[in-house]
Amino acid sequence: MSKNYSVAIVGLGAMGMGAAQSCIAAGLDTYGIDLNRVALEKLKYFGAKDVGVNGDGFAQQLDAVVLLVVNAAQVNTVLFGENGLAAKLKAGTTVMVSSTISAEDAKLISHKLTDLGLVMLDAPVSGGAAKAAQGEMTVMASGSAEAFSKLKPVLDAVAGKVYNIGEEIGLGATVKIIHQLLAGVHIAAGAEAMALAAKAGIPLNLMYEVVTNAAGNSWMFENRMKHVVDGDYTPLSMVDIFVKDLGLVNDTAKSLHFPLHLASTAYSMFTEASNAGFGKEDDSAVIKIFSGIELPKKGE
Amino acid sequence: MSKNYSVAIVGLGAMGMGAAQSCIAAGLDTYGIDLNRVALEKLKYFGAKDVGVNGDGFAQQLDAVVLLVVNAAQVNTVLFGENGLAAKLKAGTTVMVSSTISAEDAKLISHKLTDLGLVMLDAPVSGGAAKAAQGEMTVMASGSAEAFSKLKPVLDAVAGKVYNIGEEIGLGATVKIIHQLLAGVHIAAGAEAMALAAKAGIPLNLMYEVVTNAAGNSWMFENRMKHVVDGDYTPLSMVDIFVKDLGLVNDTAKSLHFPLHLASTAYSMFTEASNAGFGKEDDSAVIKIFSGIELPKKGE
Repeated sequence: MSKNYSVAIVGLGAMGMGAAQSCIAAGLDTYGIDLNRVALEKLKYFGAKDVGVNGDGFAQQLDAVVLLVVNAAQVNTVLFGENGLAAKLKAGTTVMVSSTISAEDAKLISHKLTDLGLVMLDAPVSGGAAKAAQGEMTVMASGSAEAFSKLKPVLDAVAGKVYNIGEEIGLGATVKIIHQLLAGVHIAAGAEAMALAAKAGIPLNLMYEVVTNAAGNSWMFENRMKHVVDGDYTPLSMVDIFVKDLGLVNDTAKSLHFPLHLASTAYSMFTEASNAGFGKEDDSAVIKIFSGIELPKKGE
Repeated sequence: MSKNYSVAIVGLGAMGMGAAQSCIAAGLDTYGIDLNRVALEKLKYFGAKDVGVNGDGFAQQLDAVVLLVVNAAQVNTVLFGENGLAAKLKAGTTVMVSSTISAEDAKLISHKLTDLGLVMLDAPVSGGAAKAAQGEMTVMASGSAEAFSKLKPVLDAVAGKVYNIGEEIGLGATVKIIHQLLAGVHIAAGAEAMALAAKAGIPLNLMYEVVTNAAGNSWMFENRMKHVVDGDYTPLSMVDIFVKDLGLVNDTAKSLHFPLHLASTAYSMFTEASNAGFGKEDDSAVIKIFSGIELPKKGE
């Protein structure tokens, strides 16, 4: 190509900002779209070609769009709502949908994009803000060979690993949802174990040390129970995100007529935490559903 | 000391055999006790000073005894049953109880040992057979400074990490039980996720690859779900071990008047797997409680 590859990242939260920075670092012409003007200024400062609350002014330049907004409703609003982005893109632009959404929503969005002459990759991601900023996200994607091929510069920029799950839109979404089953259950199990340790009089920093050096460890235990040990519930990812994601897990199981012993219970635990007023705290705050224990406080 | 340090390992299963080999490798005079004569011959071949179905002939030589039998009933039989080992040991011998048992049982055993002039360390272990063979087990121990000090040669030989939880006998047992809560829930959650993936038509080797490279991973998922992907349920640790250990988790929570949302469910899953005839298979066989899915078969 004579002209440089142009990509817009929509949704400049923890993951989106990191992905956008990785695109800039890889030398792509990078654009940012978000309603939060502070995030837009930040990305501009990092070297974005242009930013805006919608794609007006640069939508026609784009080879690709990456959506990292919170849920399917936001994906639909951004693409197909009033002054929606999809209608402004040139035909053949690839749209990488990386939000965690249901397989059914992924298929509905794909149909609407196809009707507009656009190409979708169903491409959820994992790895947290740190991996996103390093261009080392894990991408679990399904879609046509064309979609993978056209998005190669973006995938090279943002991903440490790209898994091709298959051609059918919805498979990527399903793999991510099953991944979230594990992530959510592991956080809730970590909270249950640490709460029991507190009740038994075991120092939580010692319990944390033992588990993280033994076979009971999980990525989520090591990452999130540190917040409990530190008494710091500043949200990196919120309780309400797992109310949403474990809700998607349960919807998926229902549509497949499949029982979920543990994930249904973990869903109730996060929902209880949200109802108790902790929905906007770090997801490790699910431990606050347990009464009759004393947890570490920040700065102690 | 003019004479070499002498230790007997009781219970030469996967963990005990590894621990005994580590003691031999560290230059300790190592003895083995087990009812399985094949295991005894194996340890003799590896360089044990002597072996036997009980300690007759060498009990008086011992500085330390390490118990790695399956449960509290076996610990009691070995130490205090007919022709029990405890009565044959010389006063001051240290007894490291490394089986997974309840805090209450640990205290009862400690009282009986104290009455005989013996010193107990409540010292459960984690790490699996491989870590045991490398002398890299994680030991979570409670007991007197004297117990820790007298067992130093053994701990140096078998442990990568030794956590001193406190002086009170029972704290080590409790930490191990809480660790097992996580280990058991993680295996059951892995099974639930992989079963759902099978139902959704996701290739399980791909699901395994994605999870082990993303934030949904756990030590147990990575270790045990490989068996599901390979269709190989040859037992390294059996379903029935988690029926026992999650039973101890639930007993512990009951005695502390504490609710267990996830661990009680995981206990039911392993118990169901055992009742369905899979108790002696690898603990990953808990996935066989899910009907209506096709799992990989060995050699495919």
